[in-house]
Amino acid sequence: MSLQFHTTYCEEFLPSDWLTCRLDGLRKAHQDLQDGTGLGGEFSAWVRPNLPPEEVTRMKEAAKDIARRCDAFVVVGIGGSYLGARAIMELLLSPHYNLLAKDTPQIFFAGNSLSSDAFHELTLLLEGKDVIINVISKSGATIETTAAYLLLRQLMSEKYSEEELKSRIIVTTDPCEGALRHHAQEEGLCSFPIPSAVGGRYSLLTAAGLLPLAVAGVDIDALLEGAVSMAEELRLGKEDNIAFRYAAARQALYRKGKLIELLVGFDPHSRIFGEWWKQLFGESEGKKGLGIFPATAEFCADLHSMGQYIQDGPKILFETLLRFGSNQRLAPKFNKGLTSDKDDYLLKHDLDDIDRETFLGTIFAHVDGGVPNLLLSVGERRPFDIGELIYFFQYACGLSAYLQGVNPFDQPGVESYKQNTHALLGDPKLEELRHGLLCRIC
Amino acid sequence: MSLQFHTTYCEEFLPSDWLTCRLDGLRKAHQDLQDGTGLGGEFSAWVRPNLPPEEVTRMKEAAKDIARRCDAFVVVGIGGSYLGARAIMELLLSPHYNLLAKDTPQIFFAGNSLSSDAFHELTLLLEGKDVIINVISKSGATIETTAAYLLLRQLMSEKYSEEELKSRIIVTTDPCEGALRHHAQEEGLCSFPIPSAVGGRYSLLTAAGLLPLAVAGVDIDALLEGAVSMAEELRLGKEDNIAFRYAAARQALYRKGKLIELLVGFDPHSRIFGEWWKQLFGESEGKKGLGIFPATAEFCADLHSMGQYIQDGPKILFETLLRFGSNQRLAPKFNKGLTSDKDDYLLKHDLDDIDRETFLGTIFAHVDGGVPNLLLSVGERRPFDIGELIYFFQYACGLSAYLQGVNPFDQPGVESYKQNTHALLGDPKLEELRHGLLCRIC
Repeated sequence: MSLQFHTTYCEEFLPSDWLTCRLDGLRKAHQDLQDGTGLGGEFSAWVRPNLPPEEVTRMKEAAKDIARRCDAFVVVGIGGSYLGARAIMELLLSPHYNLLAKDTPQIFFAGNSLSSDAFHELTLLLEGKDVIINVISKSGATIETTAAYLLLRQLMSEKYSEEELKSRIIVTTDPCEGALRHHAQEEGLCSFPIPSAVGGRYSLLTAAGLLPLAVAGVDIDALLEGAVSMAEELRLGKEDNIAFRYAAARQALYRKGKLIELLVGFDPHSRIFGEWWKQLFGESEGKKGLGIFPATAEFCADLHSMGQYIQDGPKILFETLLRFGSNQRLAPKFNKGLTSDKDDYLLKHDLDDIDRETFLGTIFAHVDGGVPNLLLSVGERRPFDIGELIYFFQYACGLSAYLQGVNPFDQPGVESYKQNTHALLGDPKLEELRHGLLCRIC
Repeated sequence: MSLQFHTTYCEEFLPSDWLTCRLDGLRKAHQDLQDGTGLGGEFSAWVRPNLPPEEVTRMKEAAKDIARRCDAFVVVGIGGSYLGARAIMELLLSPHYNLLAKDTPQIFFAGNSLSSDAFHELTLLLEGKDVIINVISKSGATIETTAAYLLLRQLMSEKYSEEELKSRIIVTTDPCEGALRHHAQEEGLCSFPIPSAVGGRYSLLTAAGLLPLAVAGVDIDALLEGAVSMAEELRLGKEDNIAFRYAAARQALYRKGKLIELLVGFDPHSRIFGEWWKQLFGESEGKKGLGIFPATAEFCADLHSMGQYIQDGPKILFETLLRFGSNQRLAPKFNKGLTSDKDDYLLKHDLDDIDRETFLGTIFAHVDGGVPNLLLSVGERRPFDIGELIYFFQYACGLSAYLQGVNPFDQPGVESYKQNTHALLGDPKLEELRHGLLCRIC
């Protein structure tokens, strides 16, 4: 296992019994996750990430076919139905994937905005290209996704015959239920399942995340192997395993008034991964008036934006550093400096040296400023290690939410805006709500 | 003035005297900003955003020349030296600018990361392209910027003669001081000033932001006109002006325990603008153990990630909605729905209708969930209106920091990590610090 978790730079902020006093709770949470006996246990199938080999093979074959038949692949989904795929694509490949892709199609993400300008821009990006779309929604009833799907389908119908069009739509949704599943069956569309017992934000390692990643050229076998390996390790429930320790440390810090957790990456590649992590923890724990506020930063970039607040602002946050062990490339060296003498000592170092000393220098500065630093040390930016990391975060999140006493797998609060929106749009079942809301519009 | 500020959806959370009890403080802060008599007043030249016309003309001419002579323009800067330009480029043009650019060069941002992988990726993106770089640093001594500049210069020297190379470097820095200014003079490089009396995060409307924006094809005259127009409006210091009201409302909410401000955009275009806003407020206010934690979200996308926390999590946040009055494009309409009957009522609406009802539905849901909503209503996504918005935020930030009793223009906390880093890299002046740090490395 390459993933390591260190509390080295946090010890002065943690009470000595931060782990031991939570071991009973962790053991219970662990058993509940393993057996599906906790709150929301009916949505914990992701705990065993072993997908049927024939499904993985079918994804890989579909991905090959997609790469052959299109220049642009559009993932239509919101929340857990796009963040995971986008996160891992940027983390393993590049935030500039679409500028660098050679043997794989460009990949765009739609259905997560209702902006006409954004939709218009998408039509420009797709102009003159052969397109395949992948509509992803667990429930099959997400309004943002449905709207984008219908509009993209209209757009494509200007170019393709009805039959050809249908061969360019792939549906990823619940295996049995929901409007999208029925639609796929009625129209005979190619489809993949998101298991009923896996919720959206835990669905990265199902077809929801894996099919787009396979299209991008990511080795999804290795990703799954990493996840399975981490699952086997954590299943043992050892008292000092990294998921126990991360979950306990965050809850201990929360109890001490650290209300915000800042996941810090050190590379532009990790930005969107942070967004996936924010949904995972924010949506799992932010309920019943409780929950750590998840935020992200990228160092060095954000040392020059949020660094001042972190160093000298209110002592209400802690940092979790997501640090990769090594770059995939040899560090570039400097031939000469900007001025003749002043920065001489800089020239003795290559870029990785400067990066490493900045990393350490920042930890010490922030710790001295009263900000606890947790350290997650990941092996490399490669599929196996990232598979481990994904599973680790999902498992630790389940544990942490149980420690906090909430259901890690529901999101009741997301319904409120949906209800209001459907009422305002004229859903006949919500007439009363509609009238109430109309009176409040200023 | 197209920009409006509404507390309509916040009134139940604000005490009745939220504005009146702060008027004395606001008047004082206003006078201090106008006269440069407050804390850090020597850095308030941005208060008068009228640039010399000949400087603007020189920028526009340089931009034309750049567009003619290169395929890729690299902005080398960190913090206030890249966020503003990138923010406005994405806001006014597109987050997919580099895929859509036709008559203007691709634009990349470097010097804000020390990752070898990220640098290697940049070399791939520049392969086979004619390149011009713009090194931006107010102080001229930023290590991340210097490192990237030196490496890019080495890379370019493989392709260009020494003379040609020098014609492909533009320096934007303090008009008189700093290593970068000296370097530009020594080498005879083309250069633009960041006025000494303007700090990095307030420098968007100087050459630091305007030159890259002109290269991208943004109408910088209109941007400046908007800023000047807002400056004239706010200079009057009317008791109910929008900057007074925004500054007072946020301080009133902070006083009531709202520790986090979430700037919410409704379009992928606003994402990076939110990052610029985070630096502006976070770095201005996050000091002396005080300051609202600035965070951002994009709705609808993040309703499906952070929506649950906002709705049902701890009541420690408020939202500031950044809402544009209209799309630039006609809203697409739906020909038919997903299922035959169930969603019939959806088909009566176009995409803008759904967007508007979702906007309102979300406000009511979050207000009912105990989250105050401030509303900033911007005219359109066009340069004049955005110029107004930029100046408004800068001015309101100055007022708000003064209300909070801190210097809006310094960033003493950013020095700590820099000192540590230079010590670890072997700066002979920091030997003692270095030894202390080495003992702490685990």
